[in-house]
Amino acid sequence: MAKGKVLLVLYKGGHHAEEQKRLLGCAENELGIRKFVEDHGYELVTTTDKDGPNSVVEKEIETAEIVITTPFFPAYVSKERIQKAKNLKICITAGVGSDHIDLNAANQKKLTVAEVTGSNVVSVAEHAVMLILNLVRNFVPSHDIALKGTWDIAGAAKDEYDLEDKVIGTVGAGRIGYRILERLVAFNPKKLYYFDYQELPAAAVKKINDASQLFNGRDAILERVEKLEDLVGRCDVVTINCPLHEKTFGLFDKKLIGKMKDGAWLVNTARGAICNAQDVSDALASGKLLGYGGDVWYPQPPPKDHPWLTMKNAHNGGNAMTPHISGTSIDAQERYSAGVKSILESYFSKKYDYRPQDLIVYNGDYATKAYGERK
Amino acid sequence: MAKGKVLLVLYKGGHHAEEQKRLLGCAENELGIRKFVEDHGYELVTTTDKDGPNSVVEKEIETAEIVITTPFFPAYVSKERIQKAKNLKICITAGVGSDHIDLNAANQKKLTVAEVTGSNVVSVAEHAVMLILNLVRNFVPSHDIALKGTWDIAGAAKDEYDLEDKVIGTVGAGRIGYRILERLVAFNPKKLYYFDYQELPAAAVKKINDASQLFNGRDAILERVEKLEDLVGRCDVVTINCPLHEKTFGLFDKKLIGKMKDGAWLVNTARGAICNAQDVSDALASGKLLGYGGDVWYPQPPPKDHPWLTMKNAHNGGNAMTPHISGTSIDAQERYSAGVKSILESYFSKKYDYRPQDLIVYNGDYATKAYGERK
Repeated sequence: MAKGKVLLVLYKGGHHAEEQKRLLGCAENELGIRKFVEDHGYELVTTTDKDGPNSVVEKEIETAEIVITTPFFPAYVSKERIQKAKNLKICITAGVGSDHIDLNAANQKKLTVAEVTGSNVVSVAEHAVMLILNLVRNFVPSHDIALKGTWDIAGAAKDEYDLEDKVIGTVGAGRIGYRILERLVAFNPKKLYYFDYQELPAAAVKKINDASQLFNGRDAILERVEKLEDLVGRCDVVTINCPLHEKTFGLFDKKLIGKMKDGAWLVNTARGAICNAQDVSDALASGKLLGYGGDVWYPQPPPKDHPWLTMKNAHNGGNAMTPHISGTSIDAQERYSAGVKSILESYFSKKYDYRPQDLIVYNGDYATKAYGERK
Repeated sequence: MAKGKVLLVLYKGGHHAEEQKRLLGCAENELGIRKFVEDHGYELVTTTDKDGPNSVVEKEIETAEIVITTPFFPAYVSKERIQKAKNLKICITAGVGSDHIDLNAANQKKLTVAEVTGSNVVSVAEHAVMLILNLVRNFVPSHDIALKGTWDIAGAAKDEYDLEDKVIGTVGAGRIGYRILERLVAFNPKKLYYFDYQELPAAAVKKINDASQLFNGRDAILERVEKLEDLVGRCDVVTINCPLHEKTFGLFDKKLIGKMKDGAWLVNTARGAICNAQDVSDALASGKLLGYGGDVWYPQPPPKDHPWLTMKNAHNGGNAMTPHISGTSIDAQERYSAGVKSILESYFSKKYDYRPQDLIVYNGDYATKAYGERK
């Protein structure tokens, strides 16, 4: 008899799992951990059936000791599910961002919540820079025009700008937000701003400023802004890189977007629920925003009538959505699969020698500052 | 009676010219130079009708003293057209890249060929980095999947990689190629290579290497490769940034592409004719290339059966084409419109005090090294 049960919830690979053996993050390839889990005497139940009262997750969570899921295809570990999960000890996020878990409920039940910190920060930062470029340079409509063969250069170019000399701000300057700043500074922005509840270390600011001096001869490129309203009011491009919690849920609504510059671009690779979906869509339609590029949705998958599936700006562009893949590149999958294995090793060995930065909730308290400023 | 005739060939703006007043580069907005030209006593003839024996260009070039055209919608100034252009003195390219002009014929007739050097190098460099990210991160198929609402993450992620730790090489390290290197170094590549007939100045190499050290602690990131075959054989990503001339026409053909790494990505924002269109399309179909991102075509506009309009890799992705807009962003249009005006001022004033870097052909000789190594 197995020592316990590991419930693993991953997205379906289908024929893609066959075509790409390195696609570890899908249900068919099981993060490459089946043998490892079974060698430790545990049972592994893998499923894609995660939502609703008759789902596999709903049933199996009652007896699971370990739940592993991803932000890309999250099994929502709600208060109700936690309450009935009588054997549950640890929730592991294969990736970064554990907002699909009710962290307060996890705290009350003294569960451990761990994620693979750093496993995909570079992937997400790259994705954010890509989406910024795609919006500012009007890639999606231009690509469509190219393949249509109409050679409507004016139609493509009329909303195409250079990133150079734009004012860019990040909401959140943590591991991802900072890496975005690093990648943007060579593009010779007019100014880089960040908003965060804690100040960046002086050395981190100096690094960005030194790079700006090196590339473009511009001093003191990076500046902290105390008020979010001030940041969004100054920026041509705003990129969202903060965690989702009670204080950031619906943060970018009509009111805050109304304080942005007319014709600004907004990029969100953090969590879909940080933006009010209908308000973003309305802002595109009205011209308040020239474009919105997001990798994240709420909920995931989105319902068929989600406004972001069809939203466009007045020129039939401005939509640069992807289906939450920024952190699940093949390279990232290899990193977070290895990270999950490492967390499991700490757990199975009863050493509980987790990497401190991987712990979100531990022994009845928040172990990270990232979710800290929330009351 | 006018002193002479200026023939201006630009792409059609249509309703876009109305919607975007800053769209200076279209025929309707005439680079904003009509009054300026007429104030100097010259006649301005603007047209979009550039190809074939009955076109406006074919007729008007016979009596034009000045021809202004763009790389985006080039009026091909062939040997035949030059021979019958009895009043022609100067050809101005509104932008960068004058390969649509028969430079040898221009030399023989002692025409001046000038372009607005630097006016859009940043725009093109940004575009190239965007196309690299779009290919490596599999943006186009992922965006399609997102808007379809199928949440096929595996289908999107199976060809998605991080740019970090990839080997990237540029063919040509001039004004654009170098700016691409500057923008790539923060992405923490494994190695950056360049191939060019002339070595980069030591200070330029040091700048890239210093940036790598600053960002990632990696030393000596940038290296020159003597043989093009060696460069393409080492790189995950190759970006083409050399001028088009006899030696580069069709350079990336089946033979050279065959020397690239399997599953590599190729980006071309230089000139379409540097690549053999059918060979690129075949390489995508065979899996030799995982993706091709190009902003440039040959000819422009492409015929309806151009392979790049429909080419795909085995997974229905890998095509990131745009319709030669990289250098015609709104920001770039303002710069090259001002640059054309400045060249015209030098000509009208009979001072001929052109910026040396703008001259391609002058007084019967090549004035630039960029087109130099071609015998």
